[in-house]
Amino acid sequence: MNYCSLCGEAVVTRIPPGDNRQRHVCDDCGAVHYVNPKMVVGAVVEWGEEILLCRRAIEPRQGYWTVPAGFLEVGETLEQGAAREALEEAEADIVIRDLLSVINVTRVGQVHVMFRAHLEQPEFGAGEESLEVALFAQAEIPWRELAFPSVRFTLERYYQDRAAGVQGVHITEVGRWR
Amino acid sequence: MNYCSLCGEAVVTRIPPGDNRQRHVCDDCGAVHYVNPKMVVGAVVEWGEEILLCRRAIEPRQGYWTVPAGFLEVGETLEQGAAREALEEAEADIVIRDLLSVINVTRVGQVHVMFRAHLEQPEFGAGEESLEVALFAQAEIPWRELAFPSVRFTLERYYQDRAAGVQGVHITEVGRWR
Repeated sequence: MNYCSLCGEAVVTRIPPGDNRQRHVCDDCGAVHYVNPKMVVGAVVEWGEEILLCRRAIEPRQGYWTVPAGFLEVGETLEQGAAREALEEAEADIVIRDLLSVINVTRVGQVHVMFRAHLEQPEFGAGEESLEVALFAQAEIPWRELAFPSVRFTLERYYQDRAAGVQGVHITEVGRWR
Repeated sequence: MNYCSLCGEAVVTRIPPGDNRQRHVCDDCGAVHYVNPKMVVGAVVEWGEEILLCRRAIEPRQGYWTVPAGFLEVGETLEQGAAREALEEAEADIVIRDLLSVINVTRVGQVHVMFRAHLEQPEFGAGEESLEVALFAQAEIPWRELAFPSVRFTLERYYQDRAAGVQGVHITEVGRWR
């Protein structure tokens, strides 16, 4: 941030009175511009025993596989955001069931929230941000070609829960792609 | 937003190519400025059978009671944010145990995430944003003077779980204060 989004003057970086962190501050109009972490929402989408994965058409991690997921928008719930992303990326009508995982991706200022869901019907397709979309059995999951650590964590816990016959909620922090 | 925070020119509001929502767009440098929901993190902090509440010294809801909670900062996990807020608002060293609630506060573009926690020692005090901080037994909770619906939801589920001897994770959406 270089300029105040309210008045257009140059901002400076300093700790405002009563605060304890460096912020972008406008000395002209007095505005303090906070930068907040962003939320990404997605879902493990089932059809019978299989789940839906999308191969990314865009960076970061173009060509790698992910569950449908993307940035939460203002005006929607986490569940609505996850359903919208499935529609946009996989042209899929989904039913959100329950919370599956919460992942601190602290290094990039994100929190990812993933749900269990299922397809309304076995109909889907590649949205603009996907190269291809397909159903995978557990033995077919492309573990070495997953796009993000949060996707790997989510799928690992999903299958562990499924094997154990439980539906847990799992929280963790992930670092760089390993 | 009136001005581009990158180049300082006036922004316009329109749907960028490949998008489907109105955004603040800079026609001078090409930047698209997204507005994302914000996360609030907090904790139900136990000392024995009692829990810690803070009476707010600041608006909104000045004079009303809340669990220690506030905006998540970039560079910290949800758990670290909840612990920092307990330190700032209640001068309390806490140990985060597990996830308790996730609340869509869609109307104001927020998601609240609350944890179960406990005090390291029975030591606390009123931070700058609190008028007073105190331990409450269940029968003493000021239900009619709680600051926010997300606090009410969190405390209701916390006590239901405690009565049932379980530790659930609860997700909901709340609207205006009722």
